[in-house]
Amino acid sequence: MGKLKFTISMSLDGYAAGPNQSLDNPLGQGGMALHEWAFATRTFSEMQGREGGSTGLDDDQARLWSENVGAVIMGRNMFGPIRGEWPDDEWKGWWGDEPPYHTPVFVLTHHAREPVEMEGGTTFHFVTDGIEAAHERARGAAGDRDVAIGGGASTVRQYLRAGLVDEMRIHMAPVLLGAGERLFDDVGDALAGFECVELVSSPAVAHYTFRRRST
Amino acid sequence: MGKLKFTISMSLDGYAAGPNQSLDNPLGQGGMALHEWAFATRTFSEMQGREGGSTGLDDDQARLWSENVGAVIMGRNMFGPIRGEWPDDEWKGWWGDEPPYHTPVFVLTHHAREPVEMEGGTTFHFVTDGIEAAHERARGAAGDRDVAIGGGASTVRQYLRAGLVDEMRIHMAPVLLGAGERLFDDVGDALAGFECVELVSSPAVAHYTFRRRST
Repeated sequence: MGKLKFTISMSLDGYAAGPNQSLDNPLGQGGMALHEWAFATRTFSEMQGREGGSTGLDDDQARLWSENVGAVIMGRNMFGPIRGEWPDDEWKGWWGDEPPYHTPVFVLTHHAREPVEMEGGTTFHFVTDGIEAAHERARGAAGDRDVAIGGGASTVRQYLRAGLVDEMRIHMAPVLLGAGERLFDDVGDALAGFECVELVSSPAVAHYTFRRRST
Repeated sequence: MGKLKFTISMSLDGYAAGPNQSLDNPLGQGGMALHEWAFATRTFSEMQGREGGSTGLDDDQARLWSENVGAVIMGRNMFGPIRGEWPDDEWKGWWGDEPPYHTPVFVLTHHAREPVEMEGGTTFHFVTDGIEAAHERARGAAGDRDVAIGGGASTVRQYLRAGLVDEMRIHMAPVLLGAGERLFDDVGDALAGFECVELVSSPAVAHYTFRRRST
């Protein structure tokens, strides 16, 4: 059976997004700096339909984002800025007609909505009965492959607290934000079962991979 | 003029010590794991008067702890477990007759005490008039060389908040403690002026060096 996993870029002082997140600045003040290493890679260029970008260690790590991923789960704030009831079916995510997922994507929300089929294999499903239900549906859709938690940080924390995460890949950017949204706050004992299985770095970022210890 | 600098090992979730620090367990629960990379080095073995230990990247980083250091500042909790008035002159630190500093060491305390001269060039001076006074005295003692903040985390935070730190070297261990003493809490805007000038890693730890941007 596949794993439940996530990938996240963090500042050295622990923030997955800067302070004052807004529609104009969804990563918060300074938050773009967390992802500069990724923007430079060929994988990111390809996701944007562009050419160029670096190959090598950072690109290898970026390529792992989608490796063996059969379904994705994301929080509603990651899907879009709309809160409360869906006013209509117009909002279909930040990613244009062909989102970079190419798998079913399960969006956590309190407000039901019909699935939205996009180009390139991505279909957004809206799950109103909680993170465990979303996990089960994603697991069913993924088959033998992994389920990735796409974000954001609060969705990741919910899955950590529930003890459901098998693997996490943390990209520690050489950046100090001073404030923002902490990934590892209020997760109780959820981290005790993990061990680091790989640590590699480029001058731009250090990549840590943790897996749940087999018990 | 020399720099004011510090070196610290942190967990990936931001802790410089584990929870429940005590006399028997001064690094807190799990805190030893932050320093395993260092214990393995030749530099650490030499500090302990032992032979052996690894050479290479981690050892090079450990060797920088004392490089060009002309004086050290430390908090009283790092000097010893005694609180309040000094009952006598018996406590002379954790480090035996010949501490590994080999320079003047300025201990922040509210309780005056005569200097204590140890073997090997270390003399402990007790400073009762605050962090800036300690910095001035250490600066005077260091000459052209650097002043190192020996720790602990709360002393480091005080110097960060005061805007006095020029360089920090952060060793990010591939460890998740879940709780403990955070280094980068409540430091306000103190981190905004720093930029990373080096990031290197071994499989055991990633080393980040930050310097204050010249303005």
